[in-house]
Amino acid sequence: MAAPLSAHTQIFPPLKNDLVIRAAKGLRTERVPVWVMRQAGRYLPEYKEAKGDTKFFDTCKNPSLVCELTIQPVKRFNVDAAIIFSDILVIPLALGLTVLNDPGEGPVYADPIKCPDDLKRLNPNFDIVEELGYVYEAITMTRMKLDGKVPLFGFTGAPWTLMKFMIENVSAGPNPNKARRFLVEHPEASHQLLTIIKDALVRHLVQQIKAGAQIVQVFDSFAGELGPILFSKFELPVLKHIAREVKEKLKAIDIEPVPMIIFAKDAHFAIEDLSHAGYDVVGLDWGAQPMHARKLAGNNVTLQGNMDPVMLYAPKDEIRKGVKEMLAKFGTQRYIANLGHGILKDTDPDNLGVFVDAVHSYSEDMNAVL
Amino acid sequence: MAAPLSAHTQIFPPLKNDLVIRAAKGLRTERVPVWVMRQAGRYLPEYKEAKGDTKFFDTCKNPSLVCELTIQPVKRFNVDAAIIFSDILVIPLALGLTVLNDPGEGPVYADPIKCPDDLKRLNPNFDIVEELGYVYEAITMTRMKLDGKVPLFGFTGAPWTLMKFMIENVSAGPNPNKARRFLVEHPEASHQLLTIIKDALVRHLVQQIKAGAQIVQVFDSFAGELGPILFSKFELPVLKHIAREVKEKLKAIDIEPVPMIIFAKDAHFAIEDLSHAGYDVVGLDWGAQPMHARKLAGNNVTLQGNMDPVMLYAPKDEIRKGVKEMLAKFGTQRYIANLGHGILKDTDPDNLGVFVDAVHSYSEDMNAVL
Repeated sequence: MAAPLSAHTQIFPPLKNDLVIRAAKGLRTERVPVWVMRQAGRYLPEYKEAKGDTKFFDTCKNPSLVCELTIQPVKRFNVDAAIIFSDILVIPLALGLTVLNDPGEGPVYADPIKCPDDLKRLNPNFDIVEELGYVYEAITMTRMKLDGKVPLFGFTGAPWTLMKFMIENVSAGPNPNKARRFLVEHPEASHQLLTIIKDALVRHLVQQIKAGAQIVQVFDSFAGELGPILFSKFELPVLKHIAREVKEKLKAIDIEPVPMIIFAKDAHFAIEDLSHAGYDVVGLDWGAQPMHARKLAGNNVTLQGNMDPVMLYAPKDEIRKGVKEMLAKFGTQRYIANLGHGILKDTDPDNLGVFVDAVHSYSEDMNAVL
Repeated sequence: MAAPLSAHTQIFPPLKNDLVIRAAKGLRTERVPVWVMRQAGRYLPEYKEAKGDTKFFDTCKNPSLVCELTIQPVKRFNVDAAIIFSDILVIPLALGLTVLNDPGEGPVYADPIKCPDDLKRLNPNFDIVEELGYVYEAITMTRMKLDGKVPLFGFTGAPWTLMKFMIENVSAGPNPNKARRFLVEHPEASHQLLTIIKDALVRHLVQQIKAGAQIVQVFDSFAGELGPILFSKFELPVLKHIAREVKEKLKAIDIEPVPMIIFAKDAHFAIEDLSHAGYDVVGLDWGAQPMHARKLAGNNVTLQGNMDPVMLYAPKDEIRKGVKEMLAKFGTQRYIANLGHGILKDTDPDNLGVFVDAVHSYSEDMNAVL
């Protein structure tokens, strides 16, 4: 595969809407910016049409299709950011796991990690541009195509969440507690595996930024099940390393750092720690209490979230009411509106439009009063 | 089925170890009492031997087998309570749902609730002694057999958790968000369904206490996924009703109330509210932070929990260390030690022994210093 264009050897169009970037940096915003996790996805008829029968990973590997899918929600809604269409599970593949089949809800691995010895099967020194160049190519292409309308997100899964997939083979069926059990039974191998994954995803984030990603999010979808003890021992240290190492590596190649978001789902016990972990933004799921989270996080970090995705099944007036209550709790500054998790696949797209527009109009009203 | 013996028409043996009862009532305990969720279960070889090929619900319906299974962990470990071997899913059956098959990990319903109209299929006025008499018979028999060694727990599932099973048919496979979606799309029918379930389980708790249960626990295993907004709107009111109505109904038949525990898994946002909801004890899962929970709960409620069940896969010294840290955080008073969720099925029974004995010895040491 050809090396991706570097964002920094070419001129990208100037950014017209920098609300998300400003909010992430703690700068004043005239209205609350909003985007939605999985906004490029199955709930959109145009997504289904463009994707057709293409398999999930084949879609991820097709830069022009990725570009089209990424931009679809930006065309349809007034969202303030795009997020590259990709998957957190590209990293285990790059590390050497193979996919037995891909039923459409995530890959089933032929060779999940079962014991410490299995770590030897991994290839930590894979050539990242060779393995994941399709992501960077798609990012550069999409950023050009967006023409500065909104900033483009890159992303990655967090080490624990990827470790869980690699051990529990999540898409093959429930294996609850298997990965947590591995932590307890094999603490040394666990640290080693988390470090291997961390190193890979640091490289992946740096490459995404180099290719044109203007902000990045780390998804720790299974952080909550660690609880405070295992989280502090195993995951928090590598999450801190990610934030620091990405900045260091960018500096070494003379690229400006971009804002970083950590979304550790259900890890309410970690909000305070995460707000001092080197990230600009802490993402919250719908189980978090906004005002309580703000108290724990302090005022030097931006919060993102957190309406329950099922609220988009409610009547439109209820959605607006929910947005109003959410904004009243978060306030309009140091805040990026989002759902508390990915938009659900059978959501009525019009209801996402109601959500997005309500965030804009209510927050403008609130700012006018201030 | 014959009406169960009433605890209050016969003389039960005097209770020798009332540590759990005293802790629940906020009375001083010389050592921290301990029991474990699912302590009667598949991790015990004697359980597998006694149960043999008997199907799960057939086991629940066999009072002498239930009695044997309930007492097994009391014989093997120094636990300070027994909990009747039964299942939270006896209530949906009593309400009229039918089981298509029972693969051993929970029943698959032939007729889950799909829409508000389906509520008409339920039979809220079922004869409780006819439908669930086997539970009460087992309780009376077990309390006699325990001979006052430790108190006997009764229990029930909470309304939301049972509603989720009735809508999502959890054991048939994952249907995430389906029940939460029902709440949002059909709020009136949801309140109605939760009330139907609540009324049934209030009757079930009263009958269990009448039959001899000396303390009861309400399991809200899926409370966390509600988040603070849906929890406050739908579940908290019915949980409060349960605590009040059980006491009122007992009073009406001249029976002393017993301590009540609410275990709302992952509902960390609700700890403060639950500590004022009419329960004597708030149970905590392993995601909760003991000292933070105590601050939220205040000092008028007992806390229970919360070691991560996977910690019982650790080496014995690590288990002891974990117990020591847990006790240091909870203190020795107004506290009942437990795991943060049910013991896992392939746990080494010896490790549960280590856990139980460590709670006793460390807490005695701590009390000696006080």
